[in-house]
Amino acid sequence: MGIDKVNIAIVGSSGYTGGELYRLLINHPRATVTAVTSEKSAGKPITSIFPHLSGLTDLVCEPLDASAIAKKADFVFLALPHVTAQEAAFQFHQLGKKVVDLSADYRLADPTVYETWYEHCHQYPELLKSAVYGLPELHREKIKKASLLANPGCYPTSAILALAPLVKKGLADIASIIIDSKSGVSGAGRSPSLVYHYPEVNEGLMAYKIGTHRHTPEIEQELAGLAGTPVTISFTPHLIPMNRGILTTAYAMLGSPTDTGRLHALYQEFYQNEPFVRVLALGQFPNVRNVRGSNFCDIGVYADPRTNRAVVVSAIDNLVKGASGQAIQNMNLMMGFDERDGLKVAGMFP
Amino acid sequence: MGIDKVNIAIVGSSGYTGGELYRLLINHPRATVTAVTSEKSAGKPITSIFPHLSGLTDLVCEPLDASAIAKKADFVFLALPHVTAQEAAFQFHQLGKKVVDLSADYRLADPTVYETWYEHCHQYPELLKSAVYGLPELHREKIKKASLLANPGCYPTSAILALAPLVKKGLADIASIIIDSKSGVSGAGRSPSLVYHYPEVNEGLMAYKIGTHRHTPEIEQELAGLAGTPVTISFTPHLIPMNRGILTTAYAMLGSPTDTGRLHALYQEFYQNEPFVRVLALGQFPNVRNVRGSNFCDIGVYADPRTNRAVVVSAIDNLVKGASGQAIQNMNLMMGFDERDGLKVAGMFP
Amino acid sequence: MGIDKVNIAIVGSSGYTGGELYRLLINHPRATVTAVTSEKSAGKPITSIFPHLSGLTDLVCEPLDASAIAKKADFVFLALPHVTAQEAAFQFHQLGKKVVDLSADYRLADPTVYETWYEHCHQYPELLKSAVYGLPELHREKIKKASLLANPGCYPTSAILALAPLVKKGLADIASIIIDSKSGVSGAGRSPSLVYHYPEVNEGLMAYKIGTHRHTPEIEQELAGLAGTPVTISFTPHLIPMNRGILTTAYAMLGSPTDTGRLHALYQEFYQNEPFVRVLALGQFPNVRNVRGSNFCDIGVYADPRTNRAVVVSAIDNLVKGASGQAIQNMNLMMGFDERDGLKVAGMFP
Amino acid sequence: MGIDKVNIAIVGSSGYTGGELYRLLINHPRATVTAVTSEKSAGKPITSIFPHLSGLTDLVCEPLDASAIAKKADFVFLALPHVTAQEAAFQFHQLGKKVVDLSADYRLADPTVYETWYEHCHQYPELLKSAVYGLPELHREKIKKASLLANPGCYPTSAILALAPLVKKGLADIASIIIDSKSGVSGAGRSPSLVYHYPEVNEGLMAYKIGTHRHTPEIEQELAGLAGTPVTISFTPHLIPMNRGILTTAYAMLGSPTDTGRLHALYQEFYQNEPFVRVLALGQFPNVRNVRGSNFCDIGVYADPRTNRAVVVSAIDNLVKGASGQAIQNMNLMMGFDERDGLKVAGMFP
Repeated sequence: MGIDKVNIAIVGSSGYTGGELYRLLINHPRATVTAVTSEKSAGKPITSIFPHLSGLTDLVCEPLDASAIAKKADFVFLALPHVTAQEAAFQFHQLGKKVVDLSADYRLADPTVYETWYEHCHQYPELLKSAVYGLPELHREKIKKASLLANPGCYPTSAILALAPLVKKGLADIASIIIDSKSGVSGAGRSPSLVYHYPEVNEGLMAYKIGTHRHTPEIEQELAGLAGTPVTISFTPHLIPMNRGILTTAYAMLGSPTDTGRLHALYQEFYQNEPFVRVLALGQFPNVRNVRGSNFCDIGVYADPRTNRAVVVSAIDNLVKGASGQAIQNMNLMMGFDERDGLKVAGMFP
Repeated sequence: MGIDKVNIAIVGSSGYTGGELYRLLINHPRATVTAVTSEKSAGKPITSIFPHLSGLTDLVCEPLDASAIAKKADFVFLALPHVTAQEAAFQFHQLGKKVVDLSADYRLADPTVYETWYEHCHQYPELLKSAVYGLPELHREKIKKASLLANPGCYPTSAILALAPLVKKGLADIASIIIDSKSGVSGAGRSPSLVYHYPEVNEGLMAYKIGTHRHTPEIEQELAGLAGTPVTISFTPHLIPMNRGILTTAYAMLGSPTDTGRLHALYQEFYQNEPFVRVLALGQFPNVRNVRGSNFCDIGVYADPRTNRAVVVSAIDNLVKGASGQAIQNMNLMMGFDERDGLKVAGMFP
Repeated sequence: MGIDKVNIAIVGSSGYTGGELYRLLINHPRATVTAVTSEKSAGKPITSIFPHLSGLTDLVCEPLDASAIAKKADFVFLALPHVTAQEAAFQFHQLGKKVVDLSADYRLADPTVYETWYEHCHQYPELLKSAVYGLPELHREKIKKASLLANPGCYPTSAILALAPLVKKGLADIASIIIDSKSGVSGAGRSPSLVYHYPEVNEGLMAYKIGTHRHTPEIEQELAGLAGTPVTISFTPHLIPMNRGILTTAYAMLGSPTDTGRLHALYQEFYQNEPFVRVLALGQFPNVRNVRGSNFCDIGVYADPRTNRAVVVSAIDNLVKGASGQAIQNMNLMMGFDERDGLKVAGMFP
Repeated sequence: MGIDKVNIAIVGSSGYTGGELYRLLINHPRATVTAVTSEKSAGKPITSIFPHLSGLTDLVCEPLDASAIAKKADFVFLALPHVTAQEAAFQFHQLGKKVVDLSADYRLADPTVYETWYEHCHQYPELLKSAVYGLPELHREKIKKASLLANPGCYPTSAILALAPLVKKGLADIASIIIDSKSGVSGAGRSPSLVYHYPEVNEGLMAYKIGTHRHTPEIEQELAGLAGTPVTISFTPHLIPMNRGILTTAYAMLGSPTDTGRLHALYQEFYQNEPFVRVLALGQFPNVRNVRGSNFCDIGVYADPRTNRAVVVSAIDNLVKGASGQAIQNMNLMMGFDERDGLKVAGMFP
């Protein structure tokens, strides 16, 4: 490895994923944040947006000017809204920078699928072809060589990791897959609106965008890759009164009778070398509280003898393994660092 | 009806359902609570257990002595643990009192099913035969004539109401039913344990008793009654960091292609005369915050054209429509009162 | 009293206090809501703003046109922002309607104090003179004769009730009064902003507007009335991650050594005939959970022998005794109804 | 310094402070946990108690046997209940180990004060004399030489840091000090009881142990040390529905008129070299969310010109700066490490 240290730009640093990137990078042994951008807060210290970083950084936000940023940083994280990220990724790519894009813009390999679900044309279909979907558990080798990485969505990370072994091994009836996910509110971002106003959320609970959530095609794309055949799923997200965490409960009919022990062994084997997937002991199921603030994905499995259905539960922190932590994991792979650098942290409990 | 007013005993009044019965009955125009029992708090005012009732009652708890209670009350609510309730129901029945049992003891018509799931023999199989399952939306006429009523469980109330129209009309593939339920913590009762210790629950989220929860056979019994054939379901309960509420997301393959409009019309028709079921407008989905403290069950439906699967979401307050409110609704029916007496209250929002 | 029933208009019904007025009035034996106004939602059913009221009302919002409203209603609740309420109160007053104004516009008897703290001139100083400050525990007889009633703020209600006996009896060193209040988030209203965005509030806790909150002069005015001399206090509000409730911890040096027993007796005597103040048993202190959804104010007292300081804690629901419930209590007095009509409800616990 | 690395024992590792010590030490560059004790969980992996540590440690709990532990570790953290800790501290001290005791047993220099407030005789008054009170901001030089360190309580840490500059400089009227503190629930420990049962705490808020909390003499001892004269304070703790964090609002009359600017300058100067105290910008006040998971104490000040009273607000994470983080800070000083080792972490927001 030629490179020991890397200078980092966080582009679009005023949202929760931007703040979380910064928090995690403070303890990264080989990365230093050297630029942060925010249009609204240009000229102000990053700590004016994120007081929890006070005492740990003096960095001042700047507007997004790709060439100016490129002079300060070797590696760019884009924490921008979709559509906006398309252009920024293109610019930094042109400037020769490696990019991890945390938006959805480069996740869907087929630009017509992007167009259907995101209601925008993709402006850079050529660049899209070179982008790698950044789920290390599935695409580690490609990630290592990527220059533009599409960081997975939070729901897809939890859903794909829950189902990958089952689908890869052909044990599930593909047509029977149901993904019932529950997310904390930070997943909705930092822009205030009535839906996320505290008294409306607290002591409340709802499903939303049933059957129509934009993360659906992303899950289907990756499961199809594993299955070797198109996959259509039912996906229902729910909003939970908590800050962080996604719990996904995934259901699939088992092609042939399979007991929990065998299912469990399959998952253990599939994930045995993964630094951030913890397959829980037989009979145990995950709780988002155990992954809060960490890059782990916890998984528990059950094969129901009454229905011959597999029930798999996964838990992640939507801002870490579901966003900024996974982005750093991908950067580590892209830079040839130890994959766990900056991420060897326990969840914060309680 | 000759009877204008009824004196009420709440037997086992120290738990949340006991407290909630009292809260709701304070505003019942034809019922007066005249006795409350609690072994632990015998001799102490009920307000020592439930300070929120202060200023509204001077009643003192007494030990459970059926003949003493029977002298004070015409109608008995049993808010006891299962097994314990069996005996108490028998005693009050012998004493000629009408009883609503909030425990599981008389819900399962087949005593061997009870034995399998609750790991106790049923001591009163004869009495069990006379018990009526108290879901008014399904069994109103029988309830009116019941002397022993088995009040449904909280999860079953939400699940059965979500699925009844679909199953009754034969639209669903029975083998494909999945019930993914999310409950607030009061559903676990008032006994402290590490699992429900505040810092363990708050900012946490988990599935539990996957495929093995005791409410499963109760749901299956009622759906089977509607379908006219045995039904086996997948049921996954989850613990949500909130006090009250159950949101159930139910999934079933549609036998024939059905659009959301038709599904919605079916639900509207099925529940058109129900005072406590609100089928939401097309495209809207329930939130537990809108039923908090009230006896309503809100329902939203979606027919997914991509998967030909129905997704039905229901919301109740687990302590009201899922327990004490439904118990009062049943009492109203059993006593010949207006079914809505004491229950014409809006949810408390926020 | 000649009047049996009253028709009610809720003017400005889209905020939390508007919704809470409606919720409580549904169960009022002598009041019927006949008009609701909302500029933003004019033409839409009130249930589109407040789905928890579905099934209990078909009322449609209308714009604020005083003469049109006056034809439909005998009694008007103003749940408008301050400044806006001034004009509306004047109009309905001119039209001969009794008005309870839930804003701050008519609370401060001295218009220059209003001007100082609210940074607006008072447009109706004459009408202001006729307004009565609606804390029934202090001003019941005046309230009965009022035609324009200024409903107290939430913090002042909790603070004044906590301190009134002490100040009225001259036991406290007036210069030593400190009021440390903690409020749930609904007190901030229903307009979304970053400060009240769920992930910013949840698991957070802060003081705000230290020494400068607009409720300060209102507290001082009423304490001064009790003391017979000007009063200057320290008031610190805090934002607590919960929906409802204010807990106020008030401190004052005792003029002469006084033990807790004597202090407690004083409070019991002072509030002995009050239907909505519960002085807790000696040694007990209030919890907002016990007043949630109810019109009660719970009070506990302690005289610290180490410091010769009184510590008084009060708990209210900010939306009920702190706003809409107290407004109805005042209406009951103004209309000659039983003061408890519509308010004989227990708190909702848990 | 001759020592590069230190082996650590966490004695009493099953509570929240034990878990938090482990979480923080995972990222300490010079410390390795080599032994953990728990009587209840002896023989089981620490991850069976704390699943959030899974994948980061294989350590197995052992019973507390001082000589066995002493062979494995050079430095001992005691996270035991008070009274129990007395004996353990003595044993490890006898064995020549440096000890940080997180209990209250060695915090009060005067054993009769301990006896009064804790209702137990102190068994080791001689050892008590050698113990150092571990608030680095006040006693850094003594801490460096200590072999037995009494780690401060959570409330005292927040209260003393809020008041130290004011008291040290003689600006406050000592007799007027009031400390109103608000704590998250983890401060109550991990033992379940009804008081901390989720539905009892959530959406609740109360004061407790008014004037009688055991942290009172600890605060008074340290403020007296700063003032050079005995100090008696009013201290009121409150329980807040959140996991972590203490916000302390402290009040004191200013001896002479002092404006906020001058007060702010005084605090900035007092804490200018402190690595973990952040005096916020003029006009800003702390929020516990900004220190969650970190060792920072944030402080904001206000001098009220209306009352000539200082209002100082401090925020800490009760498990970090209020317990385990401060314990590690003390260990760093005692071992001659960089005081910030293992603690250069940002708070986790949101």
